Amino acid sequence: MKQREFRGVFPYLVSPVDERGRVGDAVLARLAGDLVDAGVHGLTPLGSTGEFAYLDREQRRRIVQVVVEAARGRVPVVAGVAATTIADAVAQAAAYERLGVDGILAILEAYFPLTEDGVVAYFTAVAGATSLPVVLYTNPQFQRSDLTLPAIERLARIGNIRYLKDASSDTGRLLTIINAVGERIRVFSASAHIPACVMLIGGVGWMAGPACVVPRQSVELYELCRAGRWSDAMALQRGLWRINRVFAKYNLAACIKGGLELQGYEVGAPLAPQAPLGDAGRAEVRQVLADLGALSRAPAAMPR
Amino acid sequence: MKQREFRGVFPYLVSPVDERGRVGDAVLARLAGDLVDAGVHGLTPLGSTGEFAYLDREQRRRIVQVVVEAARGRVPVVAGVAATTIADAVAQAAAYERLGVDGILAILEAYFPLTEDGVVAYFTAVAGATSLPVVLYTNPQFQRSDLTLPAIERLARIGNIRYLKDASSDTGRLLTIINAVGERIRVFSASAHIPACVMLIGGVGWMAGPACVVPRQSVELYELCRAGRWSDAMALQRGLWRINRVFAKYNLAACIKGGLELQGYEVGAPLAPQAPLGDAGRAEVRQVLADLGALSRAPAAMPR
Amino acid sequence: MKQREFRGVFPYLVSPVDERGRVGDAVLARLAGDLVDAGVHGLTPLGSTGEFAYLDREQRRRIVQVVVEAARGRVPVVAGVAATTIADAVAQAAAYERLGVDGILAILEAYFPLTEDGVVAYFTAVAGATSLPVVLYTNPQFQRSDLTLPAIERLARIGNIRYLKDASSDTGRLLTIINAVGERIRVFSASAHIPACVMLIGGVGWMAGPACVVPRQSVELYELCRAGRWSDAMALQRGLWRINRVFAKYNLAACIKGGLELQGYEVGAPLAPQAPLGDAGRAEVRQVLADLGALSRAPAAMPR
Amino acid sequence: MKQREFRGVFPYLVSPVDERGRVGDAVLARLAGDLVDAGVHGLTPLGSTGEFAYLDREQRRRIVQVVVEAARGRVPVVAGVAATTIADAVAQAAAYERLGVDGILAILEAYFPLTEDGVVAYFTAVAGATSLPVVLYTNPQFQRSDLTLPAIERLARIGNIRYLKDASSDTGRLLTIINAVGERIRVFSASAHIPACVMLIGGVGWMAGPACVVPRQSVELYELCRAGRWSDAMALQRGLWRINRVFAKYNLAACIKGGLELQGYEVGAPLAPQAPLGDAGRAEVRQVLADLGALSRAPAAMPR
Repeated sequence: MKQREFRGVFPYLVSPVDERGRVGDAVLARLAGDLVDAGVHGLTPLGSTGEFAYLDREQRRRIVQVVVEAARGRVPVVAGVAATTIADAVAQAAAYERLGVDGILAILEAYFPLTEDGVVAYFTAVAGATSLPVVLYTNPQFQRSDLTLPAIERLARIGNIRYLKDASSDTGRLLTIINAVGERIRVFSASAHIPACVMLIGGVGWMAGPACVVPRQSVELYELCRAGRWSDAMALQRGLWRINRVFAKYNLAACIKGGLELQGYEVGAPLAPQAPLGDAGRAEVRQVLADLGALSRAPAAMPR
Repeated sequence: MKQREFRGVFPYLVSPVDERGRVGDAVLARLAGDLVDAGVHGLTPLGSTGEFAYLDREQRRRIVQVVVEAARGRVPVVAGVAATTIADAVAQAAAYERLGVDGILAILEAYFPLTEDGVVAYFTAVAGATSLPVVLYTNPQFQRSDLTLPAIERLARIGNIRYLKDASSDTGRLLTIINAVGERIRVFSASAHIPACVMLIGGVGWMAGPACVVPRQSVELYELCRAGRWSDAMALQRGLWRINRVFAKYNLAACIKGGLELQGYEVGAPLAPQAPLGDAGRAEVRQVLADLGALSRAPAAMPR
Repeated sequence: MKQREFRGVFPYLVSPVDERGRVGDAVLARLAGDLVDAGVHGLTPLGSTGEFAYLDREQRRRIVQVVVEAARGRVPVVAGVAATTIADAVAQAAAYERLGVDGILAILEAYFPLTEDGVVAYFTAVAGATSLPVVLYTNPQFQRSDLTLPAIERLARIGNIRYLKDASSDTGRLLTIINAVGERIRVFSASAHIPACVMLIGGVGWMAGPACVVPRQSVELYELCRAGRWSDAMALQRGLWRINRVFAKYNLAACIKGGLELQGYEVGAPLAPQAPLGDAGRAEVRQVLADLGALSRAPAAMPR
Repeated sequence: MKQREFRGVFPYLVSPVDERGRVGDAVLARLAGDLVDAGVHGLTPLGSTGEFAYLDREQRRRIVQVVVEAARGRVPVVAGVAATTIADAVAQAAAYERLGVDGILAILEAYFPLTEDGVVAYFTAVAGATSLPVVLYTNPQFQRSDLTLPAIERLARIGNIRYLKDASSDTGRLLTIINAVGERIRVFSASAHIPACVMLIGGVGWMAGPACVVPRQSVELYELCRAGRWSDAMALQRGLWRINRVFAKYNLAACIKGGLELQGYEVGAPLAPQAPLGDAGRAEVRQVLADLGALSRAPAAMPR
């Protein structure tokens, strides 16, 4: 499976952790398995939606292990590596490779601002610590040092840095990246972009939290885009976009966890002091899921 | 012409003003006429690229007058109204209507932050001061008070507020607006969005400075999008996007003026203390125009 | 008077303008005269509090004229010059000098970002347009291009650039400026700094809106600082600081105008679409003025 | 010692960690001991300068342990607790109390934005996890959720929340806090404020990295402020301020570590990918230390 290209819909998995800090193995495994059954093309534990910034070393490893086992090789698992230091990032990447993941989503956390050389050194070190394909994660909103185009061009020369996942809302930035390094780096959308637009400009899929709760609809959207049926894709996209916007209004992890609870997955609340989804948020999430035919996970016809 | 729908490519015209403050009537009229001949669907004096924030009352009026005369009713002229006070904005809108424009692009300048009621009051007053269609201008980068979705929904109820031109780079925001008020308000892209993406999600065209220097190519892109030929549109779009990015690197007015100088329009420099395009910028603009077959304005075959 | 050093308390005057755009000459003259009688050391029309960004050319000139006449040479008048272009700024400075002001407060408005050379060119041109002393105005919050230390060092070499008024809240920045150019440039505080702290580190006074409503208390604070009675100064400063914070919560012009209305000056509301001070704001301003013994302008004993 | 009030100069200690991740016990103990000998009033391991965000659990505990042992009860040790989750913060606070610290500096790290209730819940939980005095740390620049005044007022009601250390550069904010809760919460300055100003308005000292390299001068400044000798204090402060500004130009940890290396403490570089102090930075730090008589730690006469 290691040679397989990553493309399509990769849900960012939530991280169910109870009040005593124990990972909810069973519900996580069931969710991962159901997503594979719904047709998603990969699984991404420990992304933003996965609350990586709130988990300790042991919790992170356990989550990766559970997801790898649940995937059973049917789809690739791309695990998030996130750290402030090179030493920590290298250790995570090596550990997750040993656990059997198929790719690394490389995330840079920063407290003090870094120089561009520092940023490049970090991602270079992560790539050097693994034989797996690496997905660069860029997020101007939650990180102190975003990846500039010159930094991306330097990183594109490294053999196993093969993908980029951009969490900005600036779709034009993605076209600039594709124009510059599109032959070397494939681009994934995030939930702040319109996936159909990213597919139009040459993207290969999306990695995002909302796909956890609308996996079938997400896969259908992807297939319509792949088939060049843009008018049909947009009709579906317009409805799905509502869910992205509801989720952007609230804490992302709280929203996806809240939506999954409504669908019968007991994934619990985000880690404190993050607040769980409140009554207003839950009502809004419930409404949008109902409108999309996604309140029940039984394979329903999707309204268009 | 007043009933005609606005759609398509509306170049933001530059404002040629010499060191003594006199408007360059002749070159402005020639540019406007050539753009109409090249097929653009409208003309927009006094947008950002038109340096409205640097012009006095008399200069603004003269520019509107010259453009209206040059258009000779062949395409609609949508003039920018920009002010900090309601009184000034109302006076501008009334004056430009008397000069014969076909629409008003309503821009809010702010020094102190405004409440949402204040923002809505401003645009409501502009709409009330004219019988013409009004285009709301939103720009999170250069204005202190951006238009929120609730403010847009309130303004959409006013009869002659019919269009919105968004200068953010957040294309998802446009889909949110289209989902909410798309029946009442038509959306134009700006140079920070990928025009083909905005067309895909339901936009009706774009208002932007770069179309001054690549009018034929812009019109061709628009027609490909209208025809649903998305693959061909993207092939063209990828080349055109380079010009947007070059222009974003430098002062926008300096870039468009510099590009027009290279094409033989003596529009001069931006108003001081803004700097004219330097040597490096000029070389970069020249290269991208040459690559697009746009250095000469003779109707050349466009490379694809 | 032209040779006199500027130092002490310079209230930023409000700009009373009615709904038809006419300047309230009488109330402005009365306010200016009363402030001089209360002991202030200068008058500053057309600062931020004076809503310069909302006034046209004629309104600005009228306000300067009224204040110069009301001052009758008893204290220096330092008028705000604010523009986006050098041409406009130079015209304003020359006009105000002809009207008899004693100094120019030079403010840069910007729409597109400027290079440092552009910023320096602007202030250099203003200084060159007048024989009067010039006060540099720096405000990171409301302007696009703040003055960097290197820019200030370049400007300090110009003979009549003699003062700086900093509207940031970063008092350390002022000490850095004083360390670098304190021999050439004297520093005034603004309402976001604690005046007593700025006096401690070597400032020469403050230019600020709140002094309009608490002139006697402001002058007393200044005199205590000058006398090195820091403990007494701080006892007074702590009470006065409350007014700065109330005023920072609301639109500044609305607050000062609202406070003056409570004191019997019919200066009206800020120019629309700015909102007048609401009921909650008025109650809060009334309370803090009452606590400071400043609701009535009769020379009352000030509580400490 | 637990009853003793915290006041005076608390250097933020650096964290010497070698390339293999081992804490430099010996040099850290020597530095801590020398600082106590130089007269500082407390020691603060694991502040910003201490690179808490780059250290793992074991490294943090070791550093606290070394500092507690080196202090030998002569001055209070206030250790930084920093986490994204309540569970992690509570565990750290309890662990450090067991290691013998005298106070907790409570730092909130955040990835997703928090509600005010979430912020208050975090600090409340830290205070509840220890019997020691707690110092609230506020830093608008490096944290996603700054402490608002209402949040501070709520937290001031908790018995052992007794101090606040503000790392903004807005000194007026400190006076607002002192006006509101000064009876309950004592305020420490940080390196972005002018310490003499914070002392003037009622502060009780400062917690900052630069005091590591100029401890004697810092203590003298503190004593001059305490004695009300403001003129002498400012003469000293003006020279010391230069060091704060040099350190603000570069990565803070790199600067303090670089300065300590120049003084003979082999504390190494900041953790990668942070860059060590470069040649230009080292020259600048060397110059300012030389000017302050602080290049050698031998008790030298300090230039004034």
